[in-house]
Amino acid sequence: MAGHVSDAVIRRLPGYYRHLRELEAMGVQQISSQELGKRMNLTPSQIRQDINCFGGFGRQGYGYKVTELKGHIGEILGMDQSHRMIILGVGNIGSAVAKYPTFSREGFETVAAFDVASDKIGMLLHGVKVQPMSELDDYLKENQVDIAVLSVPAIVAQDTLKRLYDGGVRAVWNFAPTDLTHPDDMIVVNVHLSDSLKILSYHMAHQHDA
Amino acid sequence: MAGHVSDAVIRRLPGYYRHLRELEAMGVQQISSQELGKRMNLTPSQIRQDINCFGGFGRQGYGYKVTELKGHIGEILGMDQSHRMIILGVGNIGSAVAKYPTFSREGFETVAAFDVASDKIGMLLHGVKVQPMSELDDYLKENQVDIAVLSVPAIVAQDTLKRLYDGGVRAVWNFAPTDLTHPDDMIVVNVHLSDSLKILSYHMAHQHDA
Repeated sequence: MAGHVSDAVIRRLPGYYRHLRELEAMGVQQISSQELGKRMNLTPSQIRQDINCFGGFGRQGYGYKVTELKGHIGEILGMDQSHRMIILGVGNIGSAVAKYPTFSREGFETVAAFDVASDKIGMLLHGVKVQPMSELDDYLKENQVDIAVLSVPAIVAQDTLKRLYDGGVRAVWNFAPTDLTHPDDMIVVNVHLSDSLKILSYHMAHQHDA
Repeated sequence: MAGHVSDAVIRRLPGYYRHLRELEAMGVQQISSQELGKRMNLTPSQIRQDINCFGGFGRQGYGYKVTELKGHIGEILGMDQSHRMIILGVGNIGSAVAKYPTFSREGFETVAAFDVASDKIGMLLHGVKVQPMSELDDYLKENQVDIAVLSVPAIVAQDTLKRLYDGGVRAVWNFAPTDLTHPDDMIVVNVHLSDSLKILSYHMAHQHDA
């Protein structure tokens, strides 16, 4: 991808990938910016701008080759890499993520899981045995970890993040309902479920404003 | 709130609520736009603009009263209402949502859950008995439902959404990894977990670009 890509475009990338995969599964080989825009609730000109920004695929008037564009966007998203993932905190959310079949299918493999609760230690999560949180630092010394799923209580999230950083982990998928401070060379993407539910409730409260 | 509120401001609202609640719990009574901005990773002028947009709280140079502002933002978010929530599809994600303690604490109460799998029907989820999906339509005739959590497989999500709409449900929290078509008077907020994970992997692949 040439030059700066805006956050808005980055946020739309996985949607492109998803829709193109669906189209491919339906046997569609070629799609116009009009048709793709209709599916994605974007204007044809937004579609063209976005895709130009990914590196100028397709030819005006001919549409895009579905499989080729999907492959290209997949590469941009790093889907050609496999990712070793660990779960910190095996509560409701942590274990749901560990068991979610799509992630491993897409190359995000849960390789270890940690918790402090003695009744969870030793439990099998999708074939992975839950280890005591006290063993995290040693584990990180001996194993390569690409992504840590942070699903611990908010109050210990910042400390756990520091242990991850010290252990060499540079990417965190954070489910703890708090905003974390992190070094510049660490990537943190948040899933704030309570925030998302509040946005729904906002729209419900203001549905008749307009 | 006066006038049009942009999506970007709406997206930030739950974060304000969360930070102000944390500040309140810490005993902080008053906060300046500088200090709040530092916590939230926003500029003081963005903070002032946002809060003006919520209805002009605080006085220049005096900062904001934490409890008052939190209460005001909570009202804007509809947190003064209670919400009756049902779960469609009691898989990993659906059951995690049903059990998540924060939601009920914030007035989002799971009142029913439905699934097609015979081994799940009759199961207790945080005190709520899982019912057969075939009973959804009758349930909606007899009970008021504010929010439906849609955590069914992508392939049946659109059909399930239609049943919800026909049954009078007007707000859907969608976890199915697909974009749904919905009538204008229905609100759908998506949590696309796989998309979020791909954004993390995008940043990992492009970490050293800049």
